[in-house]
Amino acid sequence: MSNNKRAVILVSGGMDSATAVYEAIARGYEPYFLHTSYGQRTETKEYECANALANEVDAADFLHIETGHLSKIGASSLTDENMEVTDTDLKSDEIPTSYVPFRNANLVAMAISYAEANDCAAVFMGAHSEDFAGYPDCRPAFFDAFQKVIDVGTKPETEIDLVAPYVKWSKTNIAERGLELDVPYELTWSCYRDDEPACGTCDSCALRLEAFRNAGSRDPITYAERPSFSSD
Amino acid sequence: MSNNKRAVILVSGGMDSATAVYEAIARGYEPYFLHTSYGQRTETKEYECANALANEVDAADFLHIETGHLSKIGASSLTDENMEVTDTDLKSDEIPTSYVPFRNANLVAMAISYAEANDCAAVFMGAHSEDFAGYPDCRPAFFDAFQKVIDVGTKPETEIDLVAPYVKWSKTNIAERGLELDVPYELTWSCYRDDEPACGTCDSCALRLEAFRNAGSRDPITYAERPSFSSD
Repeated sequence: MSNNKRAVILVSGGMDSATAVYEAIARGYEPYFLHTSYGQRTETKEYECANALANEVDAADFLHIETGHLSKIGASSLTDENMEVTDTDLKSDEIPTSYVPFRNANLVAMAISYAEANDCAAVFMGAHSEDFAGYPDCRPAFFDAFQKVIDVGTKPETEIDLVAPYVKWSKTNIAERGLELDVPYELTWSCYRDDEPACGTCDSCALRLEAFRNAGSRDPITYAERPSFSSD
Repeated sequence: MSNNKRAVILVSGGMDSATAVYEAIARGYEPYFLHTSYGQRTETKEYECANALANEVDAADFLHIETGHLSKIGASSLTDENMEVTDTDLKSDEIPTSYVPFRNANLVAMAISYAEANDCAAVFMGAHSEDFAGYPDCRPAFFDAFQKVIDVGTKPETEIDLVAPYVKWSKTNIAERGLELDVPYELTWSCYRDDEPACGTCDSCALRLEAFRNAGSRDPITYAERPSFSSD
């Protein structure tokens, strides 16, 4: 074990992971950024945001993983150009078309490899309860089960905590916590579509706008359209 | 669920995974090959072997994943050019230098994504008990824990069995089973070094030669050197 308290944070460039970075720092961890380009439509924009945030917090390290396999495997509107990004239906119980099969297991596995090679004591991920309504790999049970894999599947001397601090929170709770931590949300990107400005109508934009509204704040980024439920 | 009985097999190009391919076929599965180039020294040779085997069995699909992240992360003599491949010490209790941090979790996660996107009912991996003497992510406990992650982390309708048929077997048992199944071992590569012919002195060659000797057979591939314990 190293004396330094280091943590890998899975930084997508979105608001949840940006908040997780500030959470890890607030808990005394030196941040190691892991950003992944896996062929998602918005990868250039997300990379720029993750990179800007790393500079902002003076990250100890920044690992950019580019891998084509999730997009090659397909079956998600996030990576498959033949599938359309659908407009939001936050009330639906179905797995959204944006689900990338078992994506978070791939991302967490990468993060644990990176953490083990760098003597990091934790891996943070910003998944939250409004994700797991639709995505099976964002649930508390997923993270609990994965912790067990880490415990048995790494070297005996390796101890890495998989931390999903917001797994039982709403996105509104995250926005509230992030505003408290002064997260620079102007450096983040959440939209599933690849045009600027953010569309304001996909699942991700809708959730984000609602979270800021509920937290009594205004999202600092620009939108093509702010849906009518938004009071600002 | 699909009516076809399909299985993804993690095919490295070595003898264990080649045997797993024939095992899956013997159990009635249509084979989907997943081969990964992750910057290991021997990736070209391994790819050739996996590809030749796919042709041999007329695989339903062949997914070649090329990803630089495990090699970027480093910390293994298999991927880090600054670390030497050490000669064998099969009696040592230490984690070998060839250990790639949490590699199998990365590979299994990829395989599950591929399986879920293609309605496969199983993922086969040829890990065995003489691996897990040194590698923590080859143990039965690792596969058991990972099965739980699959169960909770994929879509409700997805059911994928993670099958490691040899996890409690020795490499000798695998060679015996493979000889029974007529696995074309001349199409496989196990050596950790990147020169042809296989060195005969690294951990992987030593284990393989010993397995064939114990199974009362002669390994059909060519070696630069056959160690003195080999009677052939």
